[in-house]
Amino acid sequence: MSIFERVLVQLPEDGDPNATDYRIASVTEGKEVALRRDLSCQPQGLRSAAVKAGIKYADVYDTCVVVMDKPGAAAGIFTKNRSAAPAVLIDREHIADGRAQALVVLSKNANAFTPTDRENALKVCGLVAGHIGAPVSDVMISCTGVIGVKLPMEVVEAGVRKALDTLQPGLVPEVAQAILTTDKGPKVCSMQFGGVNVAAMAKGAGMIEPNMATMLVYFFTDLAVEQAELQQMLVRTADKTFNSISVDSDTSTSDSLIAFSTGTVPATPERLRDFEAALGAMMLKLAVDVVYGAEGATKLIEARVSGAVSTKNAREVARMIINSPLVKTAVFGCDPNWGRIAMAIGKPGQEQTGTIDVRRVTIRMGSATLFAKGEAVPLQLKELSADMRARKKIDIEVDLGEGDGSWTAWGCDLSYDYVKENADYTS
Amino acid sequence: MSIFERVLVQLPEDGDPNATDYRIASVTEGKEVALRRDLSCQPQGLRSAAVKAGIKYADVYDTCVVVMDKPGAAAGIFTKNRSAAPAVLIDREHIADGRAQALVVLSKNANAFTPTDRENALKVCGLVAGHIGAPVSDVMISCTGVIGVKLPMEVVEAGVRKALDTLQPGLVPEVAQAILTTDKGPKVCSMQFGGVNVAAMAKGAGMIEPNMATMLVYFFTDLAVEQAELQQMLVRTADKTFNSISVDSDTSTSDSLIAFSTGTVPATPERLRDFEAALGAMMLKLAVDVVYGAEGATKLIEARVSGAVSTKNAREVARMIINSPLVKTAVFGCDPNWGRIAMAIGKPGQEQTGTIDVRRVTIRMGSATLFAKGEAVPLQLKELSADMRARKKIDIEVDLGEGDGSWTAWGCDLSYDYVKENADYTS
Repeated sequence: MSIFERVLVQLPEDGDPNATDYRIASVTEGKEVALRRDLSCQPQGLRSAAVKAGIKYADVYDTCVVVMDKPGAAAGIFTKNRSAAPAVLIDREHIADGRAQALVVLSKNANAFTPTDRENALKVCGLVAGHIGAPVSDVMISCTGVIGVKLPMEVVEAGVRKALDTLQPGLVPEVAQAILTTDKGPKVCSMQFGGVNVAAMAKGAGMIEPNMATMLVYFFTDLAVEQAELQQMLVRTADKTFNSISVDSDTSTSDSLIAFSTGTVPATPERLRDFEAALGAMMLKLAVDVVYGAEGATKLIEARVSGAVSTKNAREVARMIINSPLVKTAVFGCDPNWGRIAMAIGKPGQEQTGTIDVRRVTIRMGSATLFAKGEAVPLQLKELSADMRARKKIDIEVDLGEGDGSWTAWGCDLSYDYVKENADYTS
Repeated sequence: MSIFERVLVQLPEDGDPNATDYRIASVTEGKEVALRRDLSCQPQGLRSAAVKAGIKYADVYDTCVVVMDKPGAAAGIFTKNRSAAPAVLIDREHIADGRAQALVVLSKNANAFTPTDRENALKVCGLVAGHIGAPVSDVMISCTGVIGVKLPMEVVEAGVRKALDTLQPGLVPEVAQAILTTDKGPKVCSMQFGGVNVAAMAKGAGMIEPNMATMLVYFFTDLAVEQAELQQMLVRTADKTFNSISVDSDTSTSDSLIAFSTGTVPATPERLRDFEAALGAMMLKLAVDVVYGAEGATKLIEARVSGAVSTKNAREVARMIINSPLVKTAVFGCDPNWGRIAMAIGKPGQEQTGTIDVRRVTIRMGSATLFAKGEAVPLQLKELSADMRARKKIDIEVDLGEGDGSWTAWGCDLSYDYVKENADYTS
């Protein structure tokens, strides 16, 4: 499963995505470099703090600030939802000049669909800017949580001030805590190669759909990447990772993927090549973490589509597989029901039209070929089901037999717990 | 809730869709004519039979035949799924000349994704054609059920022969039984006006999504409608009914909407006007029946979108509401969570782009306005939740404040039972 040329992903035999080994073939190191599942590779030139401000609950981290020592290159990808929250709109404005110096994140409240949402977000940006002596437009902000509830500004302002007063060198682990809402736990990783450090954290458990960066994701590096190049790298890598996952096809109004550079390590062609590979490995790791840790998910689905007429069509078909409620419930039930995959690959709304020639289609699920050469392969369905039960990651492979296009997307099953968690959230 | 000019739908106060009264303002009768929830208005000029052939189970109706006394006009709308089953492909060929004389339906087996599926479907058509002395191309066929299992042809042929040998005048109620799979019960209705009879039946409980006629639906009338006009009427009425419902966004590979005319009652402009209104009322009734009787559904969702920039955009937004898993689970949990509706109306993939001006948006759910003029309306959420609990039909109304486009779509909630029923279907 190598989605980029120099990103090396090794899955353990039992398919447990949590035990997956992500590495890159590093040019600067002359050897493979493994991704670390913590924030131990700290980018130079930044400080951070997280506090329990009490935005919704008394004793949880809900506010954090990361401040670069000086303004640096920043790039971002934001929700395409038409109901995008004010923080997203403000970030789009603030990042237009390609630079930023600080990030502030408020969680447990989306600060959206209220009359004062935009004003409040700007006040918070101003507070941070004033403290660090930067223009307001160099402050990026994200808010995540319940929609339509006004931010308790006294609590928020006190929290932000406290965070600014307690900044510590590097990325403190509590920052990754402070950005969470319904997540089971923090999602972090970091890498080091040729003197460059990259650290990243993500948040996201529901409202995840691959039309954009559908969660909060932050990358910090000390490599002095030029802004335009950073933006291009983000788009390229997000396309094959965060934009290829889906939990429930719902697209959040708040979520953002932002990369910050402190600029302390000079860029070289080798370092830049390693940096893009590292972005790929780290995004893939965090994207899979988001799906695997999704609301109610018991299994990760990896849909690998090949033989499509185009890359675009392969991607459409892969999305139809991971978004089909009938495929998702079959995986939850460990039911090797390839007929639902046959239905999903033909769903309307894709570029390609006309009837599929089923004699050219191959469908694999779990470890077995279920359909080939126009007919079902005679198999012991009970054994297949038992095999699916033992795995945490279910591979669905479809060869359409129509061309050379291929794509991989990741989703999860649809379980009782998804319904349970989402049937009673606000009230 | 009048979706067509002369279709009059009256919903009871408690919103129970089963108690809904569907009528048309009849020109030929000079008064309102009510839809009947049975097959009592029998079209003249046809015979039918249903048998328990034993395709999958021993003692259930699984095979039926309807034979017109002479060939008549026929029109149809079929699945747009690229994995369309052979029966659908054959029907498209057979209906190309605009006429048909018989319908044969096999249930509990989709007769798709097997090496002999097309041959078997043609054999069954031939069997019927030979018996009634008609060209094979005048026989329409549908198959519905599990995908990828070969039809037991001995059993099927014996069943079809038995049905042909036991044809009775009119539409026998067992025909509506024989087309079912996981449905809770048969869905039928009929109307009579100006000497014209129209009877209809539908099947469908899952894999329902509004890109096409996503279930089996058959209309029979004795009105001598010209074929081209019949096809246009079908498309117009299906667009606002069957093509505006969704259970799970999954699009079946088998499903078809076909109308047959026996041609015994001469057409007049008045009768044709009444006929289209009757098609509208009957399709709306059957479409709502399909959603309400859907797998695991406990509530019907009626999403009424207005104020969109175009009819097309209103329809896209209405679909996004009824297809959002987060909206569906909120309705299941009787949670007046309008934030999720705010998310759904902005989802990417719609014609309209740019940020929604939330100050112009109004969101109503159940009986209350929840969001207006840019902020949440202060309400007793517990009372609202109790009100939702007491209703079987939940109205979601969104005014986007951007234009004059409006559309109504119907969906259902997402419950534990949907997951349960679909997590263990074949194995």
